[in-house]
Amino acid sequence: MLKATIENIHKFEGQEVTISGWLYNKRSSGKIIFLQIRDGSGFIQGVVVKKEVEEEVFTTCKGLPQESSFHVTGLVQKDDRSILGYELLVNNVEVVAEAEEGYPISLKEHGTDFLMDFRHLWMRTPRQHAILKIRDEINLGLREYFHENGFTLVEPPIITPASCEGTTELFEIDYFGENAYLSQTGQLYAEAAAMAFGKVYSFGPTFRAEKSKTRKHLNEFWMIEPEMAFVDFEGNLEVQEDMVSYIVQRVLTNRKKELALLQRDTSALEKIKPPFPRITYTEAVEMLKKADFTFEWGDDFGAPHETYIADQYDKPVFITHFPTEMKAFYMQPDPEDPKVILGADLIAPEGYGEIIGGSQRIHDLDLLLTKLRAENLPEEVYQWYIELRRYGTVPHSGFGLGLERTVAWICGIDHIRQTIPFARTLNRIYP
Amino acid sequence: MLKATIENIHKFEGQEVTISGWLYNKRSSGKIIFLQIRDGSGFIQGVVVKKEVEEEVFTTCKGLPQESSFHVTGLVQKDDRSILGYELLVNNVEVVAEAEEGYPISLKEHGTDFLMDFRHLWMRTPRQHAILKIRDEINLGLREYFHENGFTLVEPPIITPASCEGTTELFEIDYFGENAYLSQTGQLYAEAAAMAFGKVYSFGPTFRAEKSKTRKHLNEFWMIEPEMAFVDFEGNLEVQEDMVSYIVQRVLTNRKKELALLQRDTSALEKIKPPFPRITYTEAVEMLKKADFTFEWGDDFGAPHETYIADQYDKPVFITHFPTEMKAFYMQPDPEDPKVILGADLIAPEGYGEIIGGSQRIHDLDLLLTKLRAENLPEEVYQWYIELRRYGTVPHSGFGLGLERTVAWICGIDHIRQTIPFARTLNRIYP
Repeated sequence: MLKATIENIHKFEGQEVTISGWLYNKRSSGKIIFLQIRDGSGFIQGVVVKKEVEEEVFTTCKGLPQESSFHVTGLVQKDDRSILGYELLVNNVEVVAEAEEGYPISLKEHGTDFLMDFRHLWMRTPRQHAILKIRDEINLGLREYFHENGFTLVEPPIITPASCEGTTELFEIDYFGENAYLSQTGQLYAEAAAMAFGKVYSFGPTFRAEKSKTRKHLNEFWMIEPEMAFVDFEGNLEVQEDMVSYIVQRVLTNRKKELALLQRDTSALEKIKPPFPRITYTEAVEMLKKADFTFEWGDDFGAPHETYIADQYDKPVFITHFPTEMKAFYMQPDPEDPKVILGADLIAPEGYGEIIGGSQRIHDLDLLLTKLRAENLPEEVYQWYIELRRYGTVPHSGFGLGLERTVAWICGIDHIRQTIPFARTLNRIYP
Repeated sequence: MLKATIENIHKFEGQEVTISGWLYNKRSSGKIIFLQIRDGSGFIQGVVVKKEVEEEVFTTCKGLPQESSFHVTGLVQKDDRSILGYELLVNNVEVVAEAEEGYPISLKEHGTDFLMDFRHLWMRTPRQHAILKIRDEINLGLREYFHENGFTLVEPPIITPASCEGTTELFEIDYFGENAYLSQTGQLYAEAAAMAFGKVYSFGPTFRAEKSKTRKHLNEFWMIEPEMAFVDFEGNLEVQEDMVSYIVQRVLTNRKKELALLQRDTSALEKIKPPFPRITYTEAVEMLKKADFTFEWGDDFGAPHETYIADQYDKPVFITHFPTEMKAFYMQPDPEDPKVILGADLIAPEGYGEIIGGSQRIHDLDLLLTKLRAENLPEEVYQWYIELRRYGTVPHSGFGLGLERTVAWICGIDHIRQTIPFARTLNRIYP
């Protein structure tokens, strides 16, 4: 018995193999049954021809409920009509466990809330499977990109004594009698690590207790946060555009089948190569005014503004030099115009919005202290962060890329909750 | 100006390069100053010879406090006495920021609590740097191992509605008015994902509100948890020994310098190749009794027991078939002897204790329900987990490897808190 996986089925053309998996779906035309077989690595059609198999095999297949588990043996043949390119001419089926009748996710349309209640089963379907395979590819791709470029992974703690950005959108926990919070960014810790390792990245879950219900918000999401010593504003943007382009091209190369299944317009993705266009916040405001948006310098962009700006380009666009007042205390003001910062947001094309926020960080001790005091942040909690400026401070920069928004954009799907295995939103912590 | 990093200095032998970094330490013999330079990628000695540099350069170097940041230019020369193999004959130094006097981590001995208070600076020292570089190598190594072997990364949620193992050692959070908990394992979610992707792994932070103060416990730590459909007890052990061996051999190949710096006995690591020895729990009890330990069948192993057992072998040892009563509800009892489970702990050599716990999981619906009820676990919270047994259940297995314990063992260091960038222990959430 030659074992095969669907992902590697091309290596077995013309051979008889056994696949261990599940019955995703089936249809019958009387003398032929078409089994949609999934094994976790992919989907393949199995063809059971009545006159070519033992009667028992045909009867078993005919009665088998959706999502039953089995070992299917058959001949691997070319099939140019499928995305996979192969089908299986079945000659035997050994059932492992017959599924109960009434599988919740039938093949009719379901509402998203219903599907999210059955996320543990929904992820078996081809679209959700493809999205999470692409997420996996992006995830490892990011890590390999940074590793090859000399970055060290340094994971920040999740349980922290204070807000890193001074906001109130924090989940609080009782840490053996002390108040503590779930981290909403690992950045400050990454800055400490950058002074020890030069170039670092953190990559982990982050938490925001926002009461947002938009299609772009999750309360628990993953973020990669590189931080680089001796890198300035300009160098920071170069890493970002290079990294984003690498990831997009890697998915195009390694996840063709999944992109095809999602019917993603890959021509839009093929254009994603450095350099990316850059406009200042001030230029963006002018652009919006010309397009008859009601928008004043100092306002924050909403989704319609971001989409309008992004639509002027066919690549992600950097919006640079935001008003200092709008941004977090640690961002470096532009020495030539301190009312704006040496930072940028990266806006994805096609209405996917901001996927990166980044900046050069303040490295001057006095300026940092002034900013902390102006925002009434507790100095004793930031003592270690302040010390980084006392001992060996250097210009440094970093950014945070939201994994789920990036997956949503590359997959071309409309709601971020599909891009994470088990979404946590305002009304959902189940399953 | 040719920029170089210390990690890649061998590519620049005989050339003049500039390194951007920090002054880790220095000593002077009047006419020569030896600078210990670090740039995050490594450590190199810089030699400043008074009669060969401009007077200002020599004066600057002489007065420069520890941890000042600078650009150092010099000639790369062979130096067989150092681990690195090269030194830098300095001809210029451009100071970026002079550090304040009184750097907390001087080169004398400090107590560990003191060092943990200054973890953000302590990680700059050669030993801590080496440990975290090895952690990084193991981290990516594990991911690449599973990727190459057809596993998909599926991250479980951190915020969960209930305990996965039914214990009380949980950190509780208020999730918009609902009680929720920080995950102490992603396993149950990984099981769901294994039914969708065949072979999966999760890799993320986990949380245990244990009031333990041993050198092997952290309250926040990272765990990799593979889960495999259609894999039984035996197959599970084979993946574990193959994975552990891969990681050890990879670190031996890629992190020679760091192991040398830590003075790790690499001959002990070179032996780590499959297969690993296996003994049953019952055999282990007999072994302990023969060695005059007071130990009864049904007792849990403490550190001295684990160490004694491990000392009988020169590789990690699997202890299999633990009493069913001692282990979590989801572990598959041995059909031939249901009072023990089809699971194993993997005990590292040299007293490092348990690094893996794993088992075949219960895939039979009725047995799972019986076990849940026997432990009074709330069925409604586990509804989705139960459904995995209604629809397409298959024999499956998995395990969890504790990252920090693995790093401690491979590095040969005595306390787990040094193996994570920012440790969270009973008395510490700072920095």
